[in-house]
Amino acid sequence: MAKPNKDARAQARLPKGLRDIGSSELRAQAAMLEKIRAVYERYGFEPLETPAFEYTDALGKFLPDQDRPNEGVFSFQDVVPEARGEKDSEQWLSLRYDLTAPLARYVAQNFQDLTKPFRRYAVGNVWRNEKPGPGRFRQFLQFDADTVGTDSVAADAEMCMLAADTLEALGLKGKYVIKVGNRKVLDGLLESIGLGGDENAAKRLIVLRAIDKFDRLGADGVQLLLGPGRKDESGDFTRGAGLGAMEIKTVLKFIVTQARHYEPVSSDRDSGAGLYGREVIADYESNLKAWEKAVGTSARGAEGLQQLRELAQLFVSAGYQDRIDITSETVRGLEYYTGPVFEADLTFQTEDDKGNPVRFGSVGGGGRYDGLVERFTGQKVPATGFSIGVSRLQAALHALGQVDQTAAGPVVVTVMEKERIADYQRLVQTLRAAGIRAELYLGNPKKFGKQLEYADKRGSPCVVIQGSDERAKGEVTLKDLIEGAKAAAKIEGHEEWKETRPAQVSVKETDLVKEVKKILARHQS
Amino acid sequence: MAKPNKDARAQARLPKGLRDIGSSELRAQAAMLEKIRAVYERYGFEPLETPAFEYTDALGKFLPDQDRPNEGVFSFQDVVPEARGEKDSEQWLSLRYDLTAPLARYVAQNFQDLTKPFRRYAVGNVWRNEKPGPGRFRQFLQFDADTVGTDSVAADAEMCMLAADTLEALGLKGKYVIKVGNRKVLDGLLESIGLGGDENAAKRLIVLRAIDKFDRLGADGVQLLLGPGRKDESGDFTRGAGLGAMEIKTVLKFIVTQARHYEPVSSDRDSGAGLYGREVIADYESNLKAWEKAVGTSARGAEGLQQLRELAQLFVSAGYQDRIDITSETVRGLEYYTGPVFEADLTFQTEDDKGNPVRFGSVGGGGRYDGLVERFTGQKVPATGFSIGVSRLQAALHALGQVDQTAAGPVVVTVMEKERIADYQRLVQTLRAAGIRAELYLGNPKKFGKQLEYADKRGSPCVVIQGSDERAKGEVTLKDLIEGAKAAAKIEGHEEWKETRPAQVSVKETDLVKEVKKILARHQS
Repeated sequence: MAKPNKDARAQARLPKGLRDIGSSELRAQAAMLEKIRAVYERYGFEPLETPAFEYTDALGKFLPDQDRPNEGVFSFQDVVPEARGEKDSEQWLSLRYDLTAPLARYVAQNFQDLTKPFRRYAVGNVWRNEKPGPGRFRQFLQFDADTVGTDSVAADAEMCMLAADTLEALGLKGKYVIKVGNRKVLDGLLESIGLGGDENAAKRLIVLRAIDKFDRLGADGVQLLLGPGRKDESGDFTRGAGLGAMEIKTVLKFIVTQARHYEPVSSDRDSGAGLYGREVIADYESNLKAWEKAVGTSARGAEGLQQLRELAQLFVSAGYQDRIDITSETVRGLEYYTGPVFEADLTFQTEDDKGNPVRFGSVGGGGRYDGLVERFTGQKVPATGFSIGVSRLQAALHALGQVDQTAAGPVVVTVMEKERIADYQRLVQTLRAAGIRAELYLGNPKKFGKQLEYADKRGSPCVVIQGSDERAKGEVTLKDLIEGAKAAAKIEGHEEWKETRPAQVSVKETDLVKEVKKILARHQS
Repeated sequence: MAKPNKDARAQARLPKGLRDIGSSELRAQAAMLEKIRAVYERYGFEPLETPAFEYTDALGKFLPDQDRPNEGVFSFQDVVPEARGEKDSEQWLSLRYDLTAPLARYVAQNFQDLTKPFRRYAVGNVWRNEKPGPGRFRQFLQFDADTVGTDSVAADAEMCMLAADTLEALGLKGKYVIKVGNRKVLDGLLESIGLGGDENAAKRLIVLRAIDKFDRLGADGVQLLLGPGRKDESGDFTRGAGLGAMEIKTVLKFIVTQARHYEPVSSDRDSGAGLYGREVIADYESNLKAWEKAVGTSARGAEGLQQLRELAQLFVSAGYQDRIDITSETVRGLEYYTGPVFEADLTFQTEDDKGNPVRFGSVGGGGRYDGLVERFTGQKVPATGFSIGVSRLQAALHALGQVDQTAAGPVVVTVMEKERIADYQRLVQTLRAAGIRAELYLGNPKKFGKQLEYADKRGSPCVVIQGSDERAKGEVTLKDLIEGAKAAAKIEGHEEWKETRPAQVSVKETDLVKEVKKILARHQS
């Protein structure tokens, strides 16, 4: 390869909103994914994987960020002629922005062969071409469960219980709430203020997305978004819905009167206390009563309320009323929802790196999307699902002090004589063949201190040393780095250290595996 | 959501070269990845994850398919202004085509903070914008290990042993060979026929890639690629290197005289037999002797031969000479390799769906790439690595009859009375809370037979039934579907079945968990 000249040098950098994930965070993530997977499996879902990108038109455009170029999606053209189908005039491809749109394509494509209702889970990265910010990335990991082919609200209820069980499996008992809303109820409300009909579909979406921001922006922010629009801290302007004062008041009243403030609870759930200290069942009922008025005569609104009533019954029957609440402001940003919508919110505050209080808020969401498969087939295929935002949830667990995980470091075989490297490598392979994590020191072996320093940084439990004397005697020296560090802390001077050589032992080379295993056993917690 | 009109309907299809992966294949893949991960961990590597796409110039262009538009890479522009760095005039992004180029960027970016030599493993999808074909996909999974910051050939030797140990962990003992070549030796050969110097760099690459195809195309195919070029079965033409007859003869001789044919062996490795029956150590030596002649006076060639000699010594010392061979035709297609290169080849044949014999060939490869970090830093940072092609390897395991995995199906709670769905859901949640995989039947419950059919398709071990009579008595009926199927096979008529109701038992609802666990225990293998 030709030597690069300095001006032509590539820059080692990542685009904003993308990040590398190191070993300790990855290990913690893997442990987390296994816990989530166990719950999803227990609920009877089966895994499915779809590719990272698909035809743009197959994924559809349902993101909240529609003012952005490309509507929030990363898109590119398929330039390989052999990879195009006959009928594809467009050949635009997009990275998936969620795991639901690909599922709808998959179901439509394989409809006849699927056992229905079709229950699948999926874990994978999704990509959004959005403005990055602190904790807001353009690649992030989602873990979804979906049931396709049923209009039973029991399927929706199950999603909420799945979300609750998942958060509990991750140690978040008492620190979260699952909030349930219904798009039909909201549609009913909007009908009642004259925003019914296909001609108002775009405006309804703007209103819904304004309501969705209630948690973050409060009533004042939502009011601006329902009216003329709102400028954020960075100066970016979001267009509003342009509603009149009366309409704004009606919408705000619907949200604000029902809005809840959740605090973490440490009380024993089994003590009979309701959701975060309130009388939930009565609450469910009073909420639904209040909304009955708000939706007026809208048939769609009444339908939504009936779904919520059935959901309440299912939650109470299964004993989940202390974890799941029915709220008016839960909307979710994606366009494709058609009925019940869900959101998993963390209720505790923590501090960011600068000591500012941070409320974690939403770590997952979902809902019913009865029209997504219909886009392909022309036939209604009802479906519902829930998605965990893995990266956000992991940040929350980290903030709670659930520390990253490190694996036990490898045994390091040091190099005393460079020309004997084949012998040292053989020692390493002997350890590995016995199932022991081990490696040869591969740096410049001139300075032995550097080798010990390396072993230390790698978290090695012990190093293996063989000089010419030891080789002649058929021996190796094992240095227990953990014991050694403890002993060194107690020793006064270098002379004493040299004399006692703490935590060091010479053993027969043929006993290498046995003796190393002894040291490893000593440090197993 | 507005109803889509038929003409505007989206088409449910995937671009060619992309595919969905169903549950049984995914479960088998997960088991496989865990086995690979265990070996990589045992070798002391630590996990790292980088994003799916990066700046195009950071990834560089090293793919063999350079005649293609975009040089084999999927690229797109970053259209979000806030996501651009200050200095980025290009703003082109590309999906990663391997896991090595992102590693080089990562190392250059974090050089000061890394413990060196830096050992990392990574598992993830990569994307190639190439012509798809049978078994040739545009998204595929790789599992890589790399050591950065050492020029020791012990690091290269380790990669080959890692590859061997990984394939053995997957049950492929005796069915593979790890082949080791050296780019420097090949460079020496090319120097000896007048292709030295920077001005011949492009031509050398064409020659190397021609040699790399020896396994697939044989001597005749390579001859065409060294000369005028070659047309493949589909009519696509690949430009040749345009060498003269004498030069072609020299190159072909170098490859063909050393080319090996490997067959699977079932003999016990410990019996002392060499690599696939041959005397390997003598073979290593005679190979190297022959190549000494071929590289002539080239200093670079001599350097490469010395590396191979040291590698041979390391393989023999660690006892891997029966699994690792040193061959002349091993080249690898990527441009960035600078020294030893490795390839993991499966040696058995199998049949495709049409009964044609298929040789699996390469399922992984790697090599030394001492210039890849230098692209960023201007300073040489030697590195070496190995990559498993997970998808191809899984196809091979599948062909060997290592079947896909299915999980035990869920217990299905059936629905006898639709208005009692909250009660049925409670039964499901009771089972799940006890750690039992369970689900409610969410389809239309009108026809009970449909529910049993569903449970059957889902592989359920048993179903739970509660009609009004049973509810009045506080009971549930459990139907053991596995026992039931066996019993049904023995029963003559419907009357007898109705009378005996095989494998069906009524139990107290309070004993539900205990009794279901009994049935599950009965069928645990």
